[in-house]
Amino acid sequence: MKRPRKEKEWLDHIRKTFSAPPAPRGIGDDCAVLEKEKWCVTTDTLVEGIDFERGWAPPEAVGWKALAVNLSDLAAMGARPAHFLLTLAIPPDFKDEKVEKLLSGMAALASKEKVSLVGGDLSRSPDKLYISITAFGFPPERPLMRGKARPGEPVYVSGPLGCPAAALSAMKNGARLPSFPLDSRVPPENVILDRFFRPPSQSGLGEKLAGHRIASSAIDISDGLLLDLSRLLEGSGCGAVLNAEEIPRAEGAGGAPVSLGEAMKSGEEQILLFTVRKSCEKTISRLGTRLFRIGFVSPKAGLWMQRGGRVSALRAGGFDHFGR
Amino acid sequence: MKRPRKEKEWLDHIRKTFSAPPAPRGIGDDCAVLEKEKWCVTTDTLVEGIDFERGWAPPEAVGWKALAVNLSDLAAMGARPAHFLLTLAIPPDFKDEKVEKLLSGMAALASKEKVSLVGGDLSRSPDKLYISITAFGFPPERPLMRGKARPGEPVYVSGPLGCPAAALSAMKNGARLPSFPLDSRVPPENVILDRFFRPPSQSGLGEKLAGHRIASSAIDISDGLLLDLSRLLEGSGCGAVLNAEEIPRAEGAGGAPVSLGEAMKSGEEQILLFTVRKSCEKTISRLGTRLFRIGFVSPKAGLWMQRGGRVSALRAGGFDHFGR
Repeated sequence: MKRPRKEKEWLDHIRKTFSAPPAPRGIGDDCAVLEKEKWCVTTDTLVEGIDFERGWAPPEAVGWKALAVNLSDLAAMGARPAHFLLTLAIPPDFKDEKVEKLLSGMAALASKEKVSLVGGDLSRSPDKLYISITAFGFPPERPLMRGKARPGEPVYVSGPLGCPAAALSAMKNGARLPSFPLDSRVPPENVILDRFFRPPSQSGLGEKLAGHRIASSAIDISDGLLLDLSRLLEGSGCGAVLNAEEIPRAEGAGGAPVSLGEAMKSGEEQILLFTVRKSCEKTISRLGTRLFRIGFVSPKAGLWMQRGGRVSALRAGGFDHFGR
Repeated sequence: MKRPRKEKEWLDHIRKTFSAPPAPRGIGDDCAVLEKEKWCVTTDTLVEGIDFERGWAPPEAVGWKALAVNLSDLAAMGARPAHFLLTLAIPPDFKDEKVEKLLSGMAALASKEKVSLVGGDLSRSPDKLYISITAFGFPPERPLMRGKARPGEPVYVSGPLGCPAAALSAMKNGARLPSFPLDSRVPPENVILDRFFRPPSQSGLGEKLAGHRIASSAIDISDGLLLDLSRLLEGSGCGAVLNAEEIPRAEGAGGAPVSLGEAMKSGEEQILLFTVRKSCEKTISRLGTRLFRIGFVSPKAGLWMQRGGRVSALRAGGFDHFGR
């Protein structure tokens, strides 16, 4: 039987898995050294038993997603992803081959998005797998912030919503993703489950929205449209009126669109939600990405839904890690 | 009964606990934005059941230590600590009051060392507490690196060794730290156990060793003198000869010094281990910190111990997270 890898062997393996970092100091010293005038920095963690279960999908999928959720936060600021630190706390029964697969999934996304691993921390865990990433991006001249929307501005999302919620509920009911092809030419075996672990990259879009000063504010939907919309508007003094018919709904398990409720509460979307400066609405169509106008910023704080000519107040709901 | 805090309430609480960050963008947006030409960045995690047990000490002690181990990595590069990101994965039975205490311990050290919290991630955990920190420091002109020692240079440590090992073994045998005073004027109830959670700050020393170009290489002892010494020398092509009589040993549980073996293998010291440029040995005595010369860099790779006129080869040993 192969002896399990030691810490130093893991470091060597990780150095090989992720190509050499352009940072002046990389993996293996006490700190990484980053050289740049400004940095966007974010951190996000996947916890086994909370954010995923080990059996849901191959380890490559978990590795991909752990990095993707961080890149999505950078995109929501309009930052171009550059580097990341990786912390893994590995339980004894998560064998080396699985760690390698997890790393290879992460490395595939890192290579696709041109981000380099510059350091991290390896630890044992008593029983659950923890993957914590801190990601660094080059910010645009004016990072996309929350709280900057103005009345009358249209509200957009960058893709259909609800697929992750459908996938999550399918996996909780026993559905499993049999494979997670890292070669982009291989189609996924289950589009809905695959989407959960492989959110569409928002990096290019975020950069454009910030660089061309198109968006007045932005956030990535990680805890549900309604909750994240209320976060986006917080501090602006504004609210929003959504149009039920315009909220794009993803295909669910049976091929039919998910329900409106699911689309509005689905978390882990890693889809951008943003408000657009009034003078820029025409530019939106020239960005080369399909974007969906779902409503307008209103001068009064609160959320409303327009449906068949009737307007009703919404309660901001979504995923709260500490909610009931 | 008080309702448990929700995520947003925790964010508000955390904002209040840690004073306002000087970073241009702080807690609560997708990313923090850091402005500086160069950054030293490090990340270190404490995992319950691996690095500590919940019952060993008050939560304040765990919060203090989680930040301290990161600051120690910055000190080992000669960097001045500036900001940090905090990731907490909190199990359901770790109640809000305990989280608050943990944060207050961390905030006390943050305030003492003038570092500001600029972001992070809050998550639930199924059963174990995970505390992961990414810390940012202003690097000196020439960061202290590993692998730069030269033959003939003296090897130093910045304090007596072995106390954390003694504390760890005492706690494993049932010893408990009853309190963890955040007011520095209150003496600890148990010096040895307290030392485990409150390693002495190395920040000022690290900055001086780098700023005055005194040290040729440095590392912080986190996995034991021998293992970290071999890491410090790796890449330099050199080895070291240690003098058994000169290795400073901390007082153990009975008041007597710990054994030499314990001193050499004790991890989690957060003590600096460094080599000194030959021209700078005199400067060392003027730094205002008691430092201990424990041996010399040898031209041949390997570690040796000098004891009563005899020299014997050492095997680099220490704590490997993935060792048996």
